Amino acid sequence: MRIFRLTNKGWVGNFAIINNKIYVLLSDPITALKIYSEGKDIPLGPEVSISLDDLLNKDYTFKDLRFTKPYDPPEVWGSGIVYEVARARYSEEDVAMIKGRTIYELVYDAERPEIFFKGTANRCVGHGEPIAIRTDSEWTLPEPELGVVIDSSGKILAYTISDDVSARDLEAQNPLYLPQSKIYNGSCAIGPFLVTPDEIGNPYSLDISMRIIRNGQVIYEGSINTSRMRRRIEDQIKYLIRNNSVPDGTLLSTGTAIVPGKDKGLKHSDIVEITITKLGIQRTPVVKLNL
Amino acid sequence: MRIFRLTNKGWVGNFAIINNKIYVLLSDPITALKIYSEGKDIPLGPEVSISLDDLLNKDYTFKDLRFTKPYDPPEVWGSGIVYEVARARYSEEDVAMIKGRTIYELVYDAERPEIFFKGTANRCVGHGEPIAIRTDSEWTLPEPELGVVIDSSGKILAYTISDDVSARDLEAQNPLYLPQSKIYNGSCAIGPFLVTPDEIGNPYSLDISMRIIRNGQVIYEGSINTSRMRRRIEDQIKYLIRNNSVPDGTLLSTGTAIVPGKDKGLKHSDIVEITITKLGIQRTPVVKLNL
Amino acid sequence: MRIFRLTNKGWVGNFAIINNKIYVLLSDPITALKIYSEGKDIPLGPEVSISLDDLLNKDYTFKDLRFTKPYDPPEVWGSGIVYEVARARYSEEDVAMIKGRTIYELVYDAERPEIFFKGTANRCVGHGEPIAIRTDSEWTLPEPELGVVIDSSGKILAYTISDDVSARDLEAQNPLYLPQSKIYNGSCAIGPFLVTPDEIGNPYSLDISMRIIRNGQVIYEGSINTSRMRRRIEDQIKYLIRNNSVPDGTLLSTGTAIVPGKDKGLKHSDIVEITITKLGIQRTPVVKLNL
Amino acid sequence: MRIFRLTNKGWVGNFAIINNKIYVLLSDPITALKIYSEGKDIPLGPEVSISLDDLLNKDYTFKDLRFTKPYDPPEVWGSGIVYEVARARYSEEDVAMIKGRTIYELVYDAERPEIFFKGTANRCVGHGEPIAIRTDSEWTLPEPELGVVIDSSGKILAYTISDDVSARDLEAQNPLYLPQSKIYNGSCAIGPFLVTPDEIGNPYSLDISMRIIRNGQVIYEGSINTSRMRRRIEDQIKYLIRNNSVPDGTLLSTGTAIVPGKDKGLKHSDIVEITITKLGIQRTPVVKLNL
Repeated sequence: MRIFRLTNKGWVGNFAIINNKIYVLLSDPITALKIYSEGKDIPLGPEVSISLDDLLNKDYTFKDLRFTKPYDPPEVWGSGIVYEVARARYSEEDVAMIKGRTIYELVYDAERPEIFFKGTANRCVGHGEPIAIRTDSEWTLPEPELGVVIDSSGKILAYTISDDVSARDLEAQNPLYLPQSKIYNGSCAIGPFLVTPDEIGNPYSLDISMRIIRNGQVIYEGSINTSRMRRRIEDQIKYLIRNNSVPDGTLLSTGTAIVPGKDKGLKHSDIVEITITKLGIQRTPVVKLNL
Repeated sequence: MRIFRLTNKGWVGNFAIINNKIYVLLSDPITALKIYSEGKDIPLGPEVSISLDDLLNKDYTFKDLRFTKPYDPPEVWGSGIVYEVARARYSEEDVAMIKGRTIYELVYDAERPEIFFKGTANRCVGHGEPIAIRTDSEWTLPEPELGVVIDSSGKILAYTISDDVSARDLEAQNPLYLPQSKIYNGSCAIGPFLVTPDEIGNPYSLDISMRIIRNGQVIYEGSINTSRMRRRIEDQIKYLIRNNSVPDGTLLSTGTAIVPGKDKGLKHSDIVEITITKLGIQRTPVVKLNL
Repeated sequence: MRIFRLTNKGWVGNFAIINNKIYVLLSDPITALKIYSEGKDIPLGPEVSISLDDLLNKDYTFKDLRFTKPYDPPEVWGSGIVYEVARARYSEEDVAMIKGRTIYELVYDAERPEIFFKGTANRCVGHGEPIAIRTDSEWTLPEPELGVVIDSSGKILAYTISDDVSARDLEAQNPLYLPQSKIYNGSCAIGPFLVTPDEIGNPYSLDISMRIIRNGQVIYEGSINTSRMRRRIEDQIKYLIRNNSVPDGTLLSTGTAIVPGKDKGLKHSDIVEITITKLGIQRTPVVKLNL
Repeated sequence: MRIFRLTNKGWVGNFAIINNKIYVLLSDPITALKIYSEGKDIPLGPEVSISLDDLLNKDYTFKDLRFTKPYDPPEVWGSGIVYEVARARYSEEDVAMIKGRTIYELVYDAERPEIFFKGTANRCVGHGEPIAIRTDSEWTLPEPELGVVIDSSGKILAYTISDDVSARDLEAQNPLYLPQSKIYNGSCAIGPFLVTPDEIGNPYSLDISMRIIRNGQVIYEGSINTSRMRRRIEDQIKYLIRNNSVPDGTLLSTGTAIVPGKDKGLKHSDIVEITITKLGIQRTPVVKLNL
């Protein structure tokens, strides 16, 4: 099952795709995912006649029906230093170091993962809605990641595309600026779909790719496969919920390994396109925030 | 615009029909009706592929998607002695009389209408759902009526089919038993549709007809046209809301003139079918309640 | 236990009196009554320093802390023809009659009580708040009654003073006008206290008395004892909830036997004072409504 | 005005102290603070008879009325590297360094403050309720801080004592573990009181002191005055809300300068006592969490 939401004039509607048919979903997404995870029948409404492709081509400036985030995550968390391929980067010289090793290397080699708070529903946008560059950031990057929706016990209810947009200059300046780098309005994009584990199968075999488009030109392309995850998702979740009660529907963004360079920082009007196998394409325009 | 609701596994979804196309309705029905009454665009979702005829053939025993009441009316009120054709009945001899005239005649000739409380959403059912016979009634009749949905100022937002099911033996016994005759679980059926005034046009030109079906046989048929309403709807509303604050979405059932005889009282397993021009057909099975 | 509420600037607070001490009540009144009825400890806050007498002397024109209704009843119902002493009145000649007997006499002698819908919280006021005369009534009377708060199973949770204010000219004109006589803004006053059954003991031994005060003069006085109830409260409740699901906290006003004459109809600025043994005094000013 | 809350059997009540008198507060705390900040009258109930000293001596094991957190903060944030006196510590050698300077020094000298997410209401406790040591921490410290309650525009509505309990071994190990050090169940204590700015006057002249008590012995004592804040509160708030919409009632904990040594880490059953001028004493027992 895949769940998505459409919005029109400030209202939202829930929909589910089962066996390639699109249905109205009568419950809210989190309840539907919990019902589904227990193997019970979810409350489906009628089939809808809809061209997903057409809808996916609209963005937030369209004044009629269009996509929005597939649900309102009560809390969003992120993981860092998850992929093995990034080992080299983790030793970059101007990063904070402890006794001769970068803090990234140290996490890379440690049992304990890096887990950070990423925000709440009001900081998240959906497909076609603008991700943001902070007023005070000159180097902001998208981070295309596999997102997992969990319940309060840590059970995985669904997967989604998650963009952990980050003000990289702030966090590079000082790891203590990580929350300012990570948590602000428009710092997270999710969707277009929530996809249940049975459709995903092995989560460690998914291609993640990203393109940044500026004035119609692709200025960056990168990809990775989740098989390169060194830090297992279960392990990330274990630490996330250790002594830390999270609500049903919490989203964990499981880390990136696609890092555009310093010359590829986002600019106002760019388009970010993230594709993950079986999860679809997330396309978001970029806006620079005003004070 | 017409609004209806479907239910599945305890959840409900809202839908709207505009220009013969069926859409998901993203807002609740009362909000949509208020927006529509102000001439603004209502929040429509995608078109749905659905056979209304198929769905209208399901009843409450069907375990999947089916019709339910088109909204949850916060309050339901009824009117009595509205139609001119019923004048004869209003003089029946064994009805309560004051100074030689029946109480029905007196209302008929008075400026003040009869307005009574009919219940709340939890006493109402929808198309395909069971209307009820009280445990202690031997003569219960359906009363097929034009229902109007109003806002708190008395403005008409929509019309619907309303069945003011009544334990006629109780009220015949004593007018002071009218509330027990009128207000109980399953005493009111509404829908299947809420239809906006622009689709109805003149509300005083609608055919109302009713059939009672028992064991597959039509045991009663009757009809009336709303042109025979002597008591205007506006007048009924004026008295309903005089010094009496009602919430947005209040339903007023505007009185009946189709009265099956004493030998036509409802029985368990009967089917009641009410048709009103432009409002569709409401079909409800009958159940006898247990103590 | 007795429960009351105070209001200030649109907000309300809940309080409980136990063993003559007044406490903040941390839960809402209906929950507290249910907990209390199960013999469990209710959630009390600290004791309050308060002069009930002073507070009871304030009315709704006071801009600071004052009494209001002791809770918001989701539904209010009334009973009629309950007291034996009223037998004579029940035979008054100009009342509606069926086969030579008044409709009141008929209820009096019947097994089935008269039960009617009386309104919702928004039609109710509390101690010190204005009860109302309809715009279109020239003869409105207070009806001082013992009110009982029940849960959805019909269990009695508390007693209170209830004033079933009625436009007697409307209902005298025609019993079909009873709902208009009974249900309008300001037609019901409850409180000042909800008192639990253990404090009341025998509910059939309470004195109910009423005074109407005009321009500082008592223009009417009357009293009755609940021992004169012919129709038992349990019997009224049995019929109220028969086939009729009512919510927890439903109020039933158990009928009156104190009836001022036609020359004693309420006038704007009158004060109504109702006293019931163990339930206190309810004092309400009278206002004539405008269209 | 000071606001506090008491709890009993899972329910809470709001109270306000004005001119040394304690009143029931009829609104929720955040609404009251907003009304007060606009110079309007808050909705007070009656005065309560209560010994604050007695109540403040109860802890969470007491089964009757006791203190709890003074409100439910929708979001809690913290600041770091705020006090000048801590400069020495900021240069400690085994802390992460960038180009020869510790990350603490860098923040100390930078325009941008360290701001971090600290949790939500469910991670917070109140006076007399247990703060926690993570299962996987061997060195957890309390951080006694001046807390400020702001509205969504950043306006200061109130001050309170805030304990930013932190798993210092985790954050010392790697600054990327800061969220795990800071955000977990029982990681934040607030109250007992919210105190409005007019009672505090100059927030840069308050003594903050802390004692850790083990087996009845004071094993640590420390104090600081807020005059030593180098990073102004307004400046912290400016960065907190820059491009980051926070809800009304957000709590910002403004940093500590009282740091018990490595040998003074909290142990199960310790008591932490924090005193701030005009804000009272916050006393919390310590529990070690289980997996």
